[in-house]
Amino acid sequence: MSTVNLNYGKLKDSYLFAKIAERVNAYSQMYPEKKILRLGIGDVTQPLCPSVIEALHEAVEDQSRAESFHGYMPECGYGPLRSAIAEYYRRRNVELNSHEVFISSGASDELGDLLHLFDRNLDAVLLEPAYPAYADANIMEGRTIHFIETSEINGFTPEPPAEALTALIYICSPNNPTGAVFSKERLKQWVDYANRTGSVILFDAAYEAFITEDDIPGSIFEIDGARTCAIEISSLSKTAGFTGTRCGYTVIPRELVRDGSSLNKMWIRNRTTRTNGVSYILQ
Amino acid sequence: MSTVNLNYGKLKDSYLFAKIAERVNAYSQMYPEKKILRLGIGDVTQPLCPSVIEALHEAVEDQSRAESFHGYMPECGYGPLRSAIAEYYRRRNVELNSHEVFISSGASDELGDLLHLFDRNLDAVLLEPAYPAYADANIMEGRTIHFIETSEINGFTPEPPAEALTALIYICSPNNPTGAVFSKERLKQWVDYANRTGSVILFDAAYEAFITEDDIPGSIFEIDGARTCAIEISSLSKTAGFTGTRCGYTVIPRELVRDGSSLNKMWIRNRTTRTNGVSYILQ
Repeated sequence: MSTVNLNYGKLKDSYLFAKIAERVNAYSQMYPEKKILRLGIGDVTQPLCPSVIEALHEAVEDQSRAESFHGYMPECGYGPLRSAIAEYYRRRNVELNSHEVFISSGASDELGDLLHLFDRNLDAVLLEPAYPAYADANIMEGRTIHFIETSEINGFTPEPPAEALTALIYICSPNNPTGAVFSKERLKQWVDYANRTGSVILFDAAYEAFITEDDIPGSIFEIDGARTCAIEISSLSKTAGFTGTRCGYTVIPRELVRDGSSLNKMWIRNRTTRTNGVSYILQ
Repeated sequence: MSTVNLNYGKLKDSYLFAKIAERVNAYSQMYPEKKILRLGIGDVTQPLCPSVIEALHEAVEDQSRAESFHGYMPECGYGPLRSAIAEYYRRRNVELNSHEVFISSGASDELGDLLHLFDRNLDAVLLEPAYPAYADANIMEGRTIHFIETSEINGFTPEPPAEALTALIYICSPNNPTGAVFSKERLKQWVDYANRTGSVILFDAAYEAFITEDDIPGSIFEIDGARTCAIEISSLSKTAGFTGTRCGYTVIPRELVRDGSSLNKMWIRNRTTRTNGVSYILQ
């Protein structure tokens, strides 16, 4: 019997971005005068915008006075913020109950944490190239991964596979790193595939704020049938200068049921057991 | 094959504190005039202290200007904070490398997340009564739990079991909820037991700040041999009015190795893959 999770041994030596950072550091120490164009994970270059700064100061002030102080936050998120996000979806004609919106410590953290809901024998489907944490987080749990290559031929938004796989399917649109966006028609094919096979789509909508066209889906829940097969992970980072502040959200519809279990209820149970919520100041 | 993690089905209907909150709400709606003494999870009643408020405002100001702005934090924690915590251990004559200190979103979150390092077939040992999340987080991963009852007879700090179990052993000292503290001698017995059996102790030191006596261990690393068998989870909540702000720390010594794997390195790999770090403002 093993003590540690031996799946970690299946990972490459180090996470891609950690490796890049290490090499960049070594190079810049050897050649301090050289200017380096960083095309790796990137970082934010602009400070937070004035309205965010003002709101953060106000929240800190709230915490300084007994009458406005908030202690532990509800584990699934602060009610007014959950409602505000449900309201934000209405502009796309997506109706959500605020209890389907969960406040997270950001999309990256959530993409790993959500895997806890799924059986470790469930396969994963990844459209490559993809955010490298998708693969690594699944390798660390011992899952088999099916990679589907995307390219100019399929506009980087491929059709579902011919084979009927029951799997965790990752779709990121607008895509990191290609920038490709799924049309409603193409996304509908994946939703139908997931419903037919009992798969669950993890829809990474972190870059949703960059969509300006009305006919491009900014949420998978604009597609009929998505409420029975999809979880949407999103971010507050990419809109108004909030990156690195570590607050995002996840939508798990109440109709999403597998093996007789409601994934919405399972996530409530996970959050109430495993976290004490996101800091009031950030929410 | 199942799609979801069926271990969730082994949990009781709801997490203890969620259940209490639900019943308290129902009762107070029925009898709004009744005063309720809440002896459940509790919440903070005092605002954050002035020095914390001042530091939070300063950090928010840093984020408003390009020259002082911090983007993504290092996933394992901000260097100066990791060093400051290592320094804090020196007052107890515990020598730590700052790379053995990991900044977390608080002890509760960390106690769940750390389980990812361990094989799901590894058993857990719990000293009852205990923080209920210990049991639930392990049930959710399908682990077998051995409960050891504590009582007045063993001063709520029992000896290790006679049976040689290789397991994840939870020790919380000062204890939540009993308030009992492990003496150095008793803790040494558990450290020796863990080293002999290849077990790993998860030492929950969240209430360490309440220790005033010099001869009571505030860290398991005051005990000889702990560096090869223990992880310490701690909190910044219980000292200077910081509760709910969601920042804590974990110590994983470099000598802690199981199945040929360094748990310190595994945790670095976990953090760099699965989080984007704790917000600069909170650190």
